Amino acid sequence: MKIIIDAMSGDNAPAEIVRGAVAAAKNLSPDISYILVGDETTVREELSSAGGDAYLAENRITVVHAEEILTMEDDPFDVIKKKKNSSMSVALRLLSDGAGDALVSAGNTGALFTGATMIVRCVKGVRRAGIAALIPFDRPLLLMDAGANVTVTAEYLEQFALMGTVYMEKLFGITSPEVGLANNGAESHKGTPVIAEAYAALTANPAIRFVGNVEGKEVPFGKCDVLVADGFTGNIILKLIEGMGSFFMKRMKKMLYANICTKLSALVLKKELYRLKRDFDASEAGGSPFLGIQKPVIKAHGSADARAVMNACRQAAAYIDNNVNDEIIRRIAALKEARAQEKADAASAEA
Amino acid sequence: MKIIIDAMSGDNAPAEIVRGAVAAAKNLSPDISYILVGDETTVREELSSAGGDAYLAENRITVVHAEEILTMEDDPFDVIKKKKNSSMSVALRLLSDGAGDALVSAGNTGALFTGATMIVRCVKGVRRAGIAALIPFDRPLLLMDAGANVTVTAEYLEQFALMGTVYMEKLFGITSPEVGLANNGAESHKGTPVIAEAYAALTANPAIRFVGNVEGKEVPFGKCDVLVADGFTGNIILKLIEGMGSFFMKRMKKMLYANICTKLSALVLKKELYRLKRDFDASEAGGSPFLGIQKPVIKAHGSADARAVMNACRQAAAYIDNNVNDEIIRRIAALKEARAQEKADAASAEA
Repeated sequence: MKIIIDAMSGDNAPAEIVRGAVAAAKNLSPDISYILVGDETTVREELSSAGGDAYLAENRITVVHAEEILTMEDDPFDVIKKKKNSSMSVALRLLSDGAGDALVSAGNTGALFTGATMIVRCVKGVRRAGIAALIPFDRPLLLMDAGANVTVTAEYLEQFALMGTVYMEKLFGITSPEVGLANNGAESHKGTPVIAEAYAALTANPAIRFVGNVEGKEVPFGKCDVLVADGFTGNIILKLIEGMGSFFMKRMKKMLYANICTKLSALVLKKELYRLKRDFDASEAGGSPFLGIQKPVIKAHGSADARAVMNACRQAAAYIDNNVNDEIIRRIAALKEARAQEKADAASAEA
Repeated sequence: MKIIIDAMSGDNAPAEIVRGAVAAAKNLSPDISYILVGDETTVREELSSAGGDAYLAENRITVVHAEEILTMEDDPFDVIKKKKNSSMSVALRLLSDGAGDALVSAGNTGALFTGATMIVRCVKGVRRAGIAALIPFDRPLLLMDAGANVTVTAEYLEQFALMGTVYMEKLFGITSPEVGLANNGAESHKGTPVIAEAYAALTANPAIRFVGNVEGKEVPFGKCDVLVADGFTGNIILKLIEGMGSFFMKRMKKMLYANICTKLSALVLKKELYRLKRDFDASEAGGSPFLGIQKPVIKAHGSADARAVMNACRQAAAYIDNNVNDEIIRRIAALKEARAQEKADAASAEA
């Protein structure tokens, strides 16, 4: 198995990305090899200082040169326009051409998603791919779509539910995961017309275990395994959770360092506090897969360190090992067939 | 000044609502009188047990009978259909007829909003009223709309910004409050077409101090005084903040009661913890005004206790004292005029 890594994108690129690749080579399955894409001289230097020369020598790590870097400030479409020679763009073409089996990048999310859709392309039958973000509540929650599709149809949302279901089944071993719909109330008619239509479609689909609408206050409390949302709402949910996490951490710090007594308490609580922080730490969770793309593309957090990059590689390997895409293809085809059958039945009932 | 109180609606009605009215009579300005709407026998009994008989005797508190109760389970339109004799419906008609100057209710939000719009009606020129929720971050944030209008136009959003601006100026003494737009990114083109159109309108409006898009992670950190959103997004933001608050409180409790050492720390931190809890306590904040309705309607939290009801009455009085609605009328008229002028200018430029 070969994992392509965009070595030049992300806040801590290239050093931490290369260190992450070396850590992955050391700690994950020896059957996985890695292709680092980026400025060859820089990447080889970083590899040396990260202790990766041995992996280079035995070809477990190879380097593919790319001249440019696509930054956070670049327009997402530059990945297929102005910056075709960027590490991200080259990495996406390598994936599309079959030089590797999966891609990990900590770069510009919009550009990576645009590139994945335009260069690697969607699975047959998938109307829109989406970003699936795993949120580490007591019961982990997969948010789909976390930001790619600002406007959606009920069909997109139904497909998001199906793809999220497959991912949680295959990667987390959850039998028949529960799916909820992000909405502004519990009742079936709630939300915009598209959301209400999606509610009806999800209710009617026997391949989805739909548990109904999920209101904002229920999001942290384990009502479902997969939370379906349009990308606008999903992005706001994801980032607000992140923001509220920082907010409470800051408040707690202020509280714990208020005076000598509370400072002593802070010492006692140190281990517990560390655990709370770790639970909301992006480097532990790995990355967000783009579900619905023909090959696995994993978006690591922009601030990913070596550990996060290694975890994203682990996730990419699990994605391949568990044949997530084959199952997505199968379910999407079954959905399409069921819809065609419904139409035929309706037509014959009318006749 | 007369404040009408829906005595029968809310989780803790009628006891806590009536106690809240008595507390308001005792603690707020002696120039305010209160009309309690609900089952006359029940309300009078509750008044007696809350020590309110003296206020009844001197007519600072009066009771208007209403037979029915509109519950959380009722359809919002029942306020003008099946449950015209409910305390909420009667209270809204009293407000509309001029028997009182403002209305406080802890009842079904959808019904109260529907009733406010259909019975009391919108301010002239206001396309849609909205629910304004004050969120107690370090810099308090007024979220408008927090749930009333699931689908909006750019014009509604611009009016929400204007009305929120007036409210924060008048009630919080903030000169030229900063207004942000809830969005899925910082750039001006971000969001749905309606959101992008609203961005342009807010940027062009000299009566609004627009500071740009506000992403989810920025919401808790004081980027603006007024956060403009459609009601679908606003509802999810408001409730997710509530949910994340509960989530962290639970996590912290678990952490603090883990063992004897942490339990001792909890004792030390008691006062600080109480303060953190209080900051996110609905009873302190009062209620959410419906901005754009011809007369002040304040929605107290469903779980409002006596203190929350009193604070909602205080808020209603401040709303009246500061002529919030007069200023809203003035600004909406000015906006309309500016738009007409723009049109005329464009037409003469074309000719």
